[in-house]
Amino acid sequence: MAKITPRSKDYSEWYLDVIREADMADYAPVRGCIVVKPYGWSLYENMRDFLDKRFKDTGHSNAAFPMFIPMSFLQKEAEHVKGFSPELAIVTIGGGEELEEPLAVRPTSETIIGYMYAQWVKSYRDLPVLINTWNSVVRWEKRTKPFLRTMEFYWQEGHTAHATHEDSQAEVMRMLDVYEQHALTECAIPVIKGRKSISERFAGANNTYSIEAMMGDRKALQSGTSHDLGQNFAKAFDIKFLDRDNTEKLCWTTSWGLSWRMLGAVIMVHGDDQGLRLPPRIAPIQVAIVPIYRNDAEKSVVMETAARVFKTLKDAGLRVKLDDREETPGFKFNDWEMRGVPARVEIGPKDVANHSVALARRDVPGKPGKAFVPQDGLPERVIALLDEIQAGLLKQATAFRDANIREVNTYDELKAAVEDGFALAPVVDDPEVDAKIKEETKATNRNFPLDQAEGEWKCIITGKPVRERALFARAY
Amino acid sequence: MAKITPRSKDYSEWYLDVIREADMADYAPVRGCIVVKPYGWSLYENMRDFLDKRFKDTGHSNAAFPMFIPMSFLQKEAEHVKGFSPELAIVTIGGGEELEEPLAVRPTSETIIGYMYAQWVKSYRDLPVLINTWNSVVRWEKRTKPFLRTMEFYWQEGHTAHATHEDSQAEVMRMLDVYEQHALTECAIPVIKGRKSISERFAGANNTYSIEAMMGDRKALQSGTSHDLGQNFAKAFDIKFLDRDNTEKLCWTTSWGLSWRMLGAVIMVHGDDQGLRLPPRIAPIQVAIVPIYRNDAEKSVVMETAARVFKTLKDAGLRVKLDDREETPGFKFNDWEMRGVPARVEIGPKDVANHSVALARRDVPGKPGKAFVPQDGLPERVIALLDEIQAGLLKQATAFRDANIREVNTYDELKAAVEDGFALAPVVDDPEVDAKIKEETKATNRNFPLDQAEGEWKCIITGKPVRERALFARAY
Repeated sequence: MAKITPRSKDYSEWYLDVIREADMADYAPVRGCIVVKPYGWSLYENMRDFLDKRFKDTGHSNAAFPMFIPMSFLQKEAEHVKGFSPELAIVTIGGGEELEEPLAVRPTSETIIGYMYAQWVKSYRDLPVLINTWNSVVRWEKRTKPFLRTMEFYWQEGHTAHATHEDSQAEVMRMLDVYEQHALTECAIPVIKGRKSISERFAGANNTYSIEAMMGDRKALQSGTSHDLGQNFAKAFDIKFLDRDNTEKLCWTTSWGLSWRMLGAVIMVHGDDQGLRLPPRIAPIQVAIVPIYRNDAEKSVVMETAARVFKTLKDAGLRVKLDDREETPGFKFNDWEMRGVPARVEIGPKDVANHSVALARRDVPGKPGKAFVPQDGLPERVIALLDEIQAGLLKQATAFRDANIREVNTYDELKAAVEDGFALAPVVDDPEVDAKIKEETKATNRNFPLDQAEGEWKCIITGKPVRERALFARAY
Repeated sequence: MAKITPRSKDYSEWYLDVIREADMADYAPVRGCIVVKPYGWSLYENMRDFLDKRFKDTGHSNAAFPMFIPMSFLQKEAEHVKGFSPELAIVTIGGGEELEEPLAVRPTSETIIGYMYAQWVKSYRDLPVLINTWNSVVRWEKRTKPFLRTMEFYWQEGHTAHATHEDSQAEVMRMLDVYEQHALTECAIPVIKGRKSISERFAGANNTYSIEAMMGDRKALQSGTSHDLGQNFAKAFDIKFLDRDNTEKLCWTTSWGLSWRMLGAVIMVHGDDQGLRLPPRIAPIQVAIVPIYRNDAEKSVVMETAARVFKTLKDAGLRVKLDDREETPGFKFNDWEMRGVPARVEIGPKDVANHSVALARRDVPGKPGKAFVPQDGLPERVIALLDEIQAGLLKQATAFRDANIREVNTYDELKAAVEDGFALAPVVDDPEVDAKIKEETKATNRNFPLDQAEGEWKCIITGKPVRERALFARAY
């Protein structure tokens, strides 16, 4: 039987155990890189397809840009190069020869895309440019962990150009909302939208907004970001347009990204000591059918029914797997529980005789609930169960999150709160304040939540009057 | 009006003009790299999705592997490193420090995937391993051309491991068939399946099979390859399994790849002097609706009908675009013809009054055919037209190809034939023979077609008796 460390014993070990035992990913023989195995990649593809549809529904198109960026491009935006140059992987040899200008493997694509937009945008008629790209990027990270922080990681990066700041700001918020809806609706993960503090902004942005989620160990995971780049990259790359009033103006640009970290979030938000629990909408397998028999005669009867049930579920549009491996039912139950398959159908000789099946669900903590239900109408019943599980996972995660956020009014209260949860604290937006709190509590300023009532507080560090609060937490 | 060079004047210029004017791709500011713009990328995505479904239908799963490969890995298979090392892009600096072992950006992934399979495969129960990955790879090419030969290119690479050579050989042929079906059914391109000659094999393969297509200038384009890797990579990476008979055996592996070259083939096989002609199944836009009006009063009437027609076509599952740009109808007609949109619906005030539309098709060479048809039943009519166009494009391409292949029995006949077509010639499979013909005629041995009647001939170069013929052509 697969062994995983209990979450309560060592959350970090539990996470790595689940990834291994659920067959999601493996370590690559390249420092800090992972291989995503079919089960993990299928989950990523499902998440990607939902998100891609949301991008297209909001008017965006996909395109592809080169993975190499000339070093001189990165240097054109001062803050950007300062932020990214320590993390670059650099190609210095090509085709057997030393390159005149080294090429960075993209850590993000603002610069090369900015260069292209400068070629493409001439007139107000060319705006807005609304493009997304799915790719992998490389950042030379010192400490890595599958999905959460890897040297090469897969993500999408959206890059848009607009005629006015009003337009670009609306885009920044629109995409933040898209990320929130993806997290809620597909991943069953509640997130807190907010504005990043000055010290946590993207290198080169005027403002960064994020969605922050609470993991099962009450730590925070930044799960997506949306950046107001102002005219910084437009200036650096000369992205100009002739406006209706016949004057030349600089564009306003945005970028926004969400990576396979969200897959790590799905593991950590929903997983339990039996392994993964996957939201049905994104689960690679939504229903596993386990046939149960003791001998060849029973097998042939059971498999016939199992095959028929498989077909009816598949025809109903479900992602279903008939487990015909030569293993014991107990092994199979454990395996599908480990892999987080939301629903399981068990069929034995008695079920065949009774025209019934046993329908088990994965979302109930501890032993899965099981019900004997008729074979007739099974697809409808399973679909309803999956909807219930999808909603139930979000509800559990939301209740857990809400129970672990505390509003604090003093630094001491914050220190206590971040020991095992999030703290919502009044602070000034000052890098020195963020740094002091991080240094002393290991908690970082996650964001200033957008959805908060304005009030009048005193900054817990400086005592200065403030009108909004920030979320602090230890974070991945 | 967009200007493109006539094909008869300069085919190569025509190709580049079409890519630019149809807004498919642009040159990147990195030597030999391109940016694929939304219209081109959408076409690639459509092709990818069809092919991906074919892979899944034949039992394959997707996964993701790192883009970096330690140099020592490439050196483990002697032929492989010999073939690829002159083309490598090499990362020597990471995180500000010189790397102890440089990393190659993958030119193809047999080595790193072979390493992983050695970890994953233990028993015959783990076989076959059937994995595909969609990614981009880098080969430092000297002369580049969009889609056909670029330094970085997008493709898929399938990698499988099997217990017996019988199994791996069946996989090699199965995937060659999948490529053929994709070319025929989705891209409307007839291809010739065959075995590559010794000199044209993939570096590290025992045998390579290819599909070869004829472009509009009668040159050949290798459009997909499937490799029997024997036990070469299994030996190099120690991919072993315990068989049913309790003995340890080496696996047999395959790999197969198809790249965005196929997109270049779609341009070159179907395009004409008006621009692209896209097969409806993969066209990003299948129907463009062009409203025609002279004043605001007409516009409001026409646009109302156009919006309704748009909705009925979209609801029927078609990829449809309502062109509401402030441009003349003539500009729009040309634009959609350039972009190869298979069908066009024109709606003017008379059409509104008559409950009709003008339905134009893009596939007829020269001026597009146009018919006035009722608005009622338009979706069914358009779907039928698109099917007709899809079949018609394949028929035209097949007729053109078949008219330009000659069977030859002497070297002189071959020399004449390859001036403007393919030659099917009896030759021995000998690198020296291939080299001589290439040197003297610029034509290369494309493959020994699988689907040929066995016979008895004399090699046109050596005079030796041979039982099969090879296809020679100048090639991209």
